[in-house]
Amino acid sequence: MSSETTIAIYGPGLLGGSLALAIQERMPGIALRLWARRDTAEAGIRDRGIQAEFFTDATAAAQGASLIILCTPVETMPAQAAQIAKADLSADCLITDVGSVKGSVVRALEPILGSRFIGSHPMAGSEKAGIETARSCLFQNATCLITPGARTPPSTSKLLLRLRTFWQALGCNVLEMSPEEHDEKVARISHLPHMMAAITTLAALRTDPAAVACVANGFRDTTRVAGGDPGLWTGIALENRQALLVQLQTASTTLTELLEILGKPDEEELRRFLAEAQSLRRTVPAAVS
Amino acid sequence: MSSETTIAIYGPGLLGGSLALAIQERMPGIALRLWARRDTAEAGIRDRGIQAEFFTDATAAAQGASLIILCTPVETMPAQAAQIAKADLSADCLITDVGSVKGSVVRALEPILGSRFIGSHPMAGSEKAGIETARSCLFQNATCLITPGARTPPSTSKLLLRLRTFWQALGCNVLEMSPEEHDEKVARISHLPHMMAAITTLAALRTDPAAVACVANGFRDTTRVAGGDPGLWTGIALENRQALLVQLQTASTTLTELLEILGKPDEEELRRFLAEAQSLRRTVPAAVS
Repeated sequence: MSSETTIAIYGPGLLGGSLALAIQERMPGIALRLWARRDTAEAGIRDRGIQAEFFTDATAAAQGASLIILCTPVETMPAQAAQIAKADLSADCLITDVGSVKGSVVRALEPILGSRFIGSHPMAGSEKAGIETARSCLFQNATCLITPGARTPPSTSKLLLRLRTFWQALGCNVLEMSPEEHDEKVARISHLPHMMAAITTLAALRTDPAAVACVANGFRDTTRVAGGDPGLWTGIALENRQALLVQLQTASTTLTELLEILGKPDEEELRRFLAEAQSLRRTVPAAVS
Repeated sequence: MSSETTIAIYGPGLLGGSLALAIQERMPGIALRLWARRDTAEAGIRDRGIQAEFFTDATAAAQGASLIILCTPVETMPAQAAQIAKADLSADCLITDVGSVKGSVVRALEPILGSRFIGSHPMAGSEKAGIETARSCLFQNATCLITPGARTPPSTSKLLLRLRTFWQALGCNVLEMSPEEHDEKVARISHLPHMMAAITTLAALRTDPAAVACVANGFRDTTRVAGGDPGLWTGIALENRQALLVQLQTASTTLTELLEILGKPDEEELRRFLAEAQSLRRTVPAAVS
């Protein structure tokens, strides 16, 4: 049983659309609202069979909602938050987002929305985008990081518990950490791999696009995320620039280490380098969805 | 219909075992032979239901075979080739291998086996190893590169045609190129991605192994091949060292390019960098198996 009554989702893309589908499937009885910037978005929502009240007015969509979820690009969230703050919000209204960075988002939204805002980052997605790629099982077995900020006092632990319960109801494994710790972790295990996939693709194919005729599954998997939307990932990389730069510097040092080993060449050192990578890779839990 | 009568496979691991299973399934009537270094390997072969004559004598296994396929580590192939050359080989005996490098293999094996040897590289495999991971569909829809060498004169085009026909019968898409061109292409689209996956794993997790709790599918895919056998990949990297060094240098330059863009930061340049990667990644054909 969910303690939510009315959930308003802002931004009907892959994440917002999947949330709507998942809520509809798993939380019957909840009133769904979907806000989009343009009214042309409504047709796509109906095509996917989503039963939600549709809004283009960001203040009206927030009115009286128990849970508000921002699924829009992180750089546009402050503008929506300002519109939401104008609404007659219910006393226990909980507001969250699904952005890939948390430090800058929490710093921007807490002053506008106060302690009712707590950041979330469900680690689910795909290199695809748009409501047509949404699916109700997207969050099943995903890790969701929730990030109480400086304004989340112990007295709001009820809000934190509700946020945790909501993501768990969608099948997520929830972890709690500070916005800063979040940004450092995701720079390591999400933003770095994304940039490395782009670098691998460019290094392999820029000077010989025809080599693509020889690709096998190793290349396919190693570079899959490089197919992601450049605009979205430019935003993410710039929002989390400092933490990402640290990770890319480490990758550069590690690449230099390998170049030196291969340059000698030192067979024993190479085996040790690859064995250390294998042993760390083996600690990655297998995908369960 | 296959023109082969007796096929001898050397090395019953993932590739050799999968070949045996695929031949058994798709080419009924062909006599199968399997050679392994130790007689303890026979139990694993029987466990997988492979109906083959079993040998530990590399000369005896080659006697009268129409097709011989070396599925052993590339560095051990010359020793097996020397044993095979001692056999009473049938006049039309065709010999190939499945090694991941071709220049050094062809240079080593042609002087021993002559023009009856033509290299192959089916681009199929996995980060897993051993006969217990073999499967008959491994080659279905895979690309197989075949590499006629300096000693493959036009008069042996019949052998080349037989080799092509054999791989096609297993479901492969066959491409023909020189051993040198092969090594340059696979450095780009196989060996480079493997090393980049190892570098990404090390950069992300070496200094914070606990970050693994946050991983999602992006990290899983980008680093999957880093789980591969360090010994096998040390051999591959050293055999194809020169071509791999060129690719890793290019990757290093590309990583420096990204560090400079992020360092400024230059939003337009970053978007262009990621858009170029996305556009190249979109040329990769989807996996069909």
